[in-house]
Amino acid sequence: MSRYFIGVDVGGTKTTALVADVEGNVAGIGAARGGNPRSSGAETAEVVAAAAAEALGGIDPSRVAHGVVAVAGGVAGRSAEEQPILRAWSRAGLSAPVTFVPDVLAAFRAGTPARRGAVLVAGTGAVAAVVDGDAVVRRAGGHGWLVGDEGSAVWLGIRGVRAVLHALDGRGPATSLTTAFVEAIGIDADADPEALARALVDHVYAHPPADLGRLARPVVDACAAGDAVASELVRDA
Amino acid sequence: MSRYFIGVDVGGTKTTALVADVEGNVAGIGAARGGNPRSSGAETAEVVAAAAAEALGGIDPSRVAHGVVAVAGGVAGRSAEEQPILRAWSRAGLSAPVTFVPDVLAAFRAGTPARRGAVLVAGTGAVAAVVDGDAVVRRAGGHGWLVGDEGSAVWLGIRGVRAVLHALDGRGPATSLTTAFVEAIGIDADADPEALARALVDHVYAHPPADLGRLARPVVDACAAGDAVASELVRDA
Repeated sequence: MSRYFIGVDVGGTKTTALVADVEGNVAGIGAARGGNPRSSGAETAEVVAAAAAEALGGIDPSRVAHGVVAVAGGVAGRSAEEQPILRAWSRAGLSAPVTFVPDVLAAFRAGTPARRGAVLVAGTGAVAAVVDGDAVVRRAGGHGWLVGDEGSAVWLGIRGVRAVLHALDGRGPATSLTTAFVEAIGIDADADPEALARALVDHVYAHPPADLGRLARPVVDACAAGDAVASELVRDA
Repeated sequence: MSRYFIGVDVGGTKTTALVADVEGNVAGIGAARGGNPRSSGAETAEVVAAAAAEALGGIDPSRVAHGVVAVAGGVAGRSAEEQPILRAWSRAGLSAPVTFVPDVLAAFRAGTPARRGAVLVAGTGAVAAVVDGDAVVRRAGGHGWLVGDEGSAVWLGIRGVRAVLHALDGRGPATSLTTAFVEAIGIDADADPEALARALVDHVYAHPPADLGRLARPVVDACAAGDAVASELVRDA
């Protein structure tokens, strides 16, 4: 009976699982919401189990020989953070051993068969790293949405919100981002500037930080359309 | 039997309550931890009740004729956010009506008897406002630690952490803030740069955002001592 392998990549905005046989043929793909332990507002263990279960589909979990879980936030190698994931893994019927790896290592492997090289991740978060074999030997950025990840989607979203609030306060130049964010978030556009600011601020604090990455798209679009404020943000990123 | 009045000011880092008689003589003062609903990681209602109880001391709560609660984050005027505070108020034995006001209004009243003027709050958070009578008629900043409060203690702390991480990553100039933060947080100073960065990042995400305001002092001290990186941060603030 053929054996399978499963890999799960936990991101800030989405989690993807893939089941393959020993020849590398894909046998199933699963998806779940983001499970970054610092920014997604979801339990990493639950999203790993959900994505894995979907990827397995009708495949008996006992036929999985090995699993790899790639996750940010320095989870790999920390027993206290690995254990909840292992328990959810067991509850999903999986008994295969799991190798935890930093998400940058999985990103590097996904892009090249080389053993040594550099990887630049620009997603919900952002990090650059040098990989040598199975080790991340050097790393810049990737310290998360609050004190790192410069140039990431969340970083752009936060900068965009600040720019809009400055415009609404009268502290900064007007920008088309105001209308774009009002539409993206679904605020009543007829509200006065102070009510708009309050609704925008309420939205920000009511959602997990990773969700701010969704506001990066309007910033990039406004930049492409020539908005000066958005263009400066994209230049900084 | 004389009547009393009680005022509670809920800040990001600390909460203060004061009981006074009708002539304005202070009858008691109470303190509790910060209770900013967005940044302090504590229940606003509980800190209000704790500070009020301490300020009352031996005074019968039924002798309090009126209370004022000043709190940031747009709580004033929102029933859903006022109600938990009112329930804690009742549990503390207080039956007097409560007037909720924005914290900037309380700050303005504390500084001047004038009916109209401007107030600049530079604490854990930061906001500027124009007050006319009992109304805040104009406001700039004060949108909280994530997308506002430029120049506040938390803002300085976050900028300081970013600067230290850049120095440890090799992306930015060396700064005396690295040693200062290592001491302030209590990290093992012999650790290599990557371990220091990881310990600093772990500390940041393990504490409520308002706690980052405590790192503003080392930034200001380093600026005073001539550190170029810290000086630039203070200039921006």
